[in-house]
Amino acid sequence: MKPQISQRGRMMPASPIRKLAPLADAARKRGTHVYHLNIGQPDLETPAAMRRRLDSAPSVFAYTPSGGTAECVASLQEYYRGHGIVLDPDQIIVTTGGSEAILFAMTACAGEGDEALVVEPFYTNYMAFATMAGLRLVPLRARAEDGFHLPPIGEWSRALSPRTRLVLLCNPSNPTGTVYRREEVETIAAFCREHGLFLVADEVYRELVYDGQTATSALHLPDMDEVAVVVDSLSKRYSACGIRLGCVATRNRAVSDVCLRMAQGRLSPPGLAQLVALGASDLGPDYAPGLVAEYQARRDVLFDGLSQLPGVFLRKPEGAFYFVARVPVEDSEDFAAWLLSDFSFQGATVMVAPAPGFYATPGLGHDEVRIAYVLNRKDLEASVQILAHALPAYRTARALGPIGAPTGATAEAR
Amino acid sequence: MKPQISQRGRMMPASPIRKLAPLADAARKRGTHVYHLNIGQPDLETPAAMRRRLDSAPSVFAYTPSGGTAECVASLQEYYRGHGIVLDPDQIIVTTGGSEAILFAMTACAGEGDEALVVEPFYTNYMAFATMAGLRLVPLRARAEDGFHLPPIGEWSRALSPRTRLVLLCNPSNPTGTVYRREEVETIAAFCREHGLFLVADEVYRELVYDGQTATSALHLPDMDEVAVVVDSLSKRYSACGIRLGCVATRNRAVSDVCLRMAQGRLSPPGLAQLVALGASDLGPDYAPGLVAEYQARRDVLFDGLSQLPGVFLRKPEGAFYFVARVPVEDSEDFAAWLLSDFSFQGATVMVAPAPGFYATPGLGHDEVRIAYVLNRKDLEASVQILAHALPAYRTARALGPIGAPTGATAEAR
Repeated sequence: MKPQISQRGRMMPASPIRKLAPLADAARKRGTHVYHLNIGQPDLETPAAMRRRLDSAPSVFAYTPSGGTAECVASLQEYYRGHGIVLDPDQIIVTTGGSEAILFAMTACAGEGDEALVVEPFYTNYMAFATMAGLRLVPLRARAEDGFHLPPIGEWSRALSPRTRLVLLCNPSNPTGTVYRREEVETIAAFCREHGLFLVADEVYRELVYDGQTATSALHLPDMDEVAVVVDSLSKRYSACGIRLGCVATRNRAVSDVCLRMAQGRLSPPGLAQLVALGASDLGPDYAPGLVAEYQARRDVLFDGLSQLPGVFLRKPEGAFYFVARVPVEDSEDFAAWLLSDFSFQGATVMVAPAPGFYATPGLGHDEVRIAYVLNRKDLEASVQILAHALPAYRTARALGPIGAPTGATAEAR
Repeated sequence: MKPQISQRGRMMPASPIRKLAPLADAARKRGTHVYHLNIGQPDLETPAAMRRRLDSAPSVFAYTPSGGTAECVASLQEYYRGHGIVLDPDQIIVTTGGSEAILFAMTACAGEGDEALVVEPFYTNYMAFATMAGLRLVPLRARAEDGFHLPPIGEWSRALSPRTRLVLLCNPSNPTGTVYRREEVETIAAFCREHGLFLVADEVYRELVYDGQTATSALHLPDMDEVAVVVDSLSKRYSACGIRLGCVATRNRAVSDVCLRMAQGRLSPPGLAQLVALGASDLGPDYAPGLVAEYQARRDVLFDGLSQLPGVFLRKPEGAFYFVARVPVEDSEDFAAWLLSDFSFQGATVMVAPAPGFYATPGLGHDEVRIAYVLNRKDLEASVQILAHALPAYRTARALGPIGAPTGATAEAR
């Protein structure tokens, strides 16, 4: 008798990029350069001040305290203080990346069969963590025309059920690049307070906000001590994705206590990563503005370039380093595969993330792609040129007619 | 309305050491040296050949492939080949320590409300992962008199239910140091095959087997390709607990595929740890025998010393670097606390892990402690002396009478 994997195992979503990766490999083998606009892996160096910390690694790579070393927690405290958020050390649980922080938050705040409200399109991997934790994600649709800002509160109320336990909000948003205005966050915060829900706020792109704006943290708002559970990561702000370091930050003592107990179960977060993290204190006041300026310039290259292409629609993204653009295709998964398998322009092509992977509702995102601007400006300019040539070529290849003729979907949406 | 944490959050077990840690801190503040026999954190250096690999860290600490870098997977393949286990690269999923490997294996092999059979006493943190994954651990009691070897198969059959999905076997065992004989592993393997169960084998102490013996891996046995799911870690064999690197190794394609999808959800295992892991290939043939000889000598110091103490009972442990000893006390949690709070001998005391934390059945382990031999021999000799003086002193302090007079529990057990 053969043992069978679990139902949740069968439901566990595969990475939407997985099918495309072999096509990208094949393109490279043909000698085609592939510009990766599909993943959130910055090309920027991890700051030398952080990498240098590895020189002081001890000779025994030992377990650290489960909630993080005192030094690492203190450096996070200092970081939050710099963002106007005052936390005690025991309100910060250091985790193995933002990923573990999300899993801990979901597991602490909801049980098997409970529901979480989330704006779609959303970060794909929320679905993987929800499947592991047995949660049902209940999507509320945000729309390109609104710059993917939050749907009206009436829609949130209608989505409530007796099993709703939390709102999961990514701000600034991956994948849309939307930065929710303070009033929007306040509205959702009040909604959570009114209905006894946790606000699990994924704020890993906190400093990546452009045009002189800032993001409102769930921990900035009053009367949120019992409600706000921030999940965070060092990956993006320090271009240190691979060290796997993040945290859960919350003033809700029951939540921090459960997270600490889960942390004890898995013994400790990565020790070398915690060493590297300490170097963030050495970065000085110019680091963050420099980072923001670089990404803002990249955004501008892509936004200015892409928004001039016939049939492409996007509002100017306000933060993070992604956006979701509507493109004149009917099947963005086919388009993304075609870019890798059947197209090149001056020896190069681009890899984009088809948007259906960011929606829970079947059928959405078929005319959208997510684009990450984690390459230098020259590469991004080249990517715009590739897409400018690819879109009409793809429509010809798929007999979709000239771009000027709106498809049903775009006509309706405009 | 305040949001409430989940039921599983409330059930999440706290580390059994947690209550003792402040007492150990207080002892140190009083100037008492504390010998830590309570945790599996070796004092040995992480091999220089592994630490040196950090010198070749890249300037971008980037995500690695979700299942591990090709180089890291290849080095694990080579390691397993050296232990007579031939695996394809896609049969190895690199994880964030053995901890994540256990969580992945449990989640893939069983669902919410399903049951796992496990020998008690067992590694405490299985309970934390089972709580996260919604599994019920069904304990089968192993006894000190049998050297904590497996209970007879009839007990396993009686423990079966329609919800049983897997057997969780730690071999060599933490906390008992028992190495199950090949026939024992074969018996459990046949039991799993007969009843359609997975055998999730935690083999992180694989090479730590003494007196010239070796451990039988679940992957060594025939007809186990669909059944065996090995969880592993580099922590113990390379004294590299803090890097957080392990793996799931299985020939069951459905399980490896689910584990890979969970791995994709959390993006990647720690990159620096994977670099460090590559250095294991440079260690040469003398490394493992040297490690085994050192731990065997430590075991002998503790076994020879403790087994001569009146009222202490233990069989000679065969592997890992722990054992569970019966001690002449009625409440090992109180005894462990008393050692830290009320006792010292020549300016020092010991910290031990009370055994109730390793049992699921309430009331067991109250006259047992787990001892880890992760200190040098001189420190272990000093620890024996401390316990030799502490036990009679504790009995006097708690008015338990002289050690010669057996308590009800020890009389029954012998």
